[in-house]
Amino acid sequence: MPPDHSRAPIGVFDSGIGGLTVAASLRRLLPSEKILYIGDTARVPYGGKSRATVERYSLELGELLLAEHAKIIVVACNTASALGVPRMKEVFRVPVQGVILPGAKAAVSSTKNKIIGVIGTRATIASGAYERAILDIDPAARIHCTACPLLVPLIEEGLFDDPVTDQILARYLVPLLSKGIDTLVLGCTHYPLLKPAIAKIAGPSVSLVDSAENCALAVQTLLRDAQLSTPANLSGQLDVALTDATEGFLRTAAQALELKINQVTLGDTARK
Amino acid sequence: MPPDHSRAPIGVFDSGIGGLTVAASLRRLLPSEKILYIGDTARVPYGGKSRATVERYSLELGELLLAEHAKIIVVACNTASALGVPRMKEVFRVPVQGVILPGAKAAVSSTKNKIIGVIGTRATIASGAYERAILDIDPAARIHCTACPLLVPLIEEGLFDDPVTDQILARYLVPLLSKGIDTLVLGCTHYPLLKPAIAKIAGPSVSLVDSAENCALAVQTLLRDAQLSTPANLSGQLDVALTDATEGFLRTAAQALELKINQVTLGDTARK
Repeated sequence: MPPDHSRAPIGVFDSGIGGLTVAASLRRLLPSEKILYIGDTARVPYGGKSRATVERYSLELGELLLAEHAKIIVVACNTASALGVPRMKEVFRVPVQGVILPGAKAAVSSTKNKIIGVIGTRATIASGAYERAILDIDPAARIHCTACPLLVPLIEEGLFDDPVTDQILARYLVPLLSKGIDTLVLGCTHYPLLKPAIAKIAGPSVSLVDSAENCALAVQTLLRDAQLSTPANLSGQLDVALTDATEGFLRTAAQALELKINQVTLGDTARK
Repeated sequence: MPPDHSRAPIGVFDSGIGGLTVAASLRRLLPSEKILYIGDTARVPYGGKSRATVERYSLELGELLLAEHAKIIVVACNTASALGVPRMKEVFRVPVQGVILPGAKAAVSSTKNKIIGVIGTRATIASGAYERAILDIDPAARIHCTACPLLVPLIEEGLFDDPVTDQILARYLVPLLSKGIDTLVLGCTHYPLLKPAIAKIAGPSVSLVDSAENCALAVQTLLRDAQLSTPANLSGQLDVALTDATEGFLRTAAQALELKINQVTLGDTARK
């Protein structure tokens, strides 16, 4: 009989804390699963870095999760999904789930006029990953992308509801809105924390697509298909390990997401 | 006869590109010196990271500079100066010059009412390094410190002259100004790029202390005392190596500082 991997953890990583939005969706959808989340806070952010660097970091974090016996690797970071997932899929034996494809699918389901906006970090937008993923599903879609490099720092400062955040958001969003988009992909796992502020500017006629929820649904399907789901009668938990001590934002994010977190420590190799 | 180290380069490092303000001061003051600058753009920023992590990064970058035969190591980053320099001085055989002590000396020389403000990253301010350095020189000084975590992202986006930058600056500076400071230490090597915007809010009665110029003077003295100065008839240059490819900001900064730069590549070890 093969060993039972179903009770192994779901491994999740992000450049920092933003991916907790994905962890929160996984907890809601799959409450019996154990989740091990690694935030690479020693090297955060990834969003302005090169493909080679982000790919290398992604492989290193995947290795750390495998060393903890992860049964699947969830890349809860759009930049790492855009730049790191292709190589991770070649290298790792466990399934690898990024956030780009679920977000792209959700955007195509949501749009009526086929005009879709995408916002993300500089690296995610420059990769063209969302454009490719959306056009693969619907070649008739028209896609407008904007890099929003200041949003992550504003979010990490907790300025969710702040006139400065509103002004910066308006600069990024008004040109997109003028293209007639009816759907906006929040292509960075931090951005769901700005949903109310974004909705205020985008207005009720634009649907906001948050890849966290859709990524969690994709993970559910993957686990079911691979017969790796934990029995439903068990109760899961969320363990969080960070590559560097961070103040404030972990608490802020956990609170905003109503998440119960156990902070854990990995081996020395984690402090890369 | 001992080997002549005087023509070896001055090694400079920063978490990113901000330390080019120090490199620019060194070029002006010591035009015959060769300068090798390493920007750790693969792990930038340091300003929100822990002491242990910043210390480890500082030692790694120091090693890279020594491998290139640097005759002195200049830490052109306030966060690394605050958290990394003490250990570097224990470990390295060449002189190590940070930016904190020169800035502290300049602040004490400049102040008349002995009320000094200091702005910097979260990690620099939390370290208390400026307070200690200033009080060591003048125990009667009164020091007010404020962490300004959004300034580096705004500067890296090139928003030097922008209403949003002005609003954020006002939030950080108005409480400091209300304490009656007559001197403000720009305790981050990025901040000199915001001097005009800061001066607009601080007004003419507050002197702005920029540690770049003072650090360059300290390096000049160190080299002279150790008989390591390059002969004045030679012409120097500035070589810049980055641990990750960065777009835009290197060009922006070089332009703003009127710096001529040769971009160079280090060995593989540099891509940590």
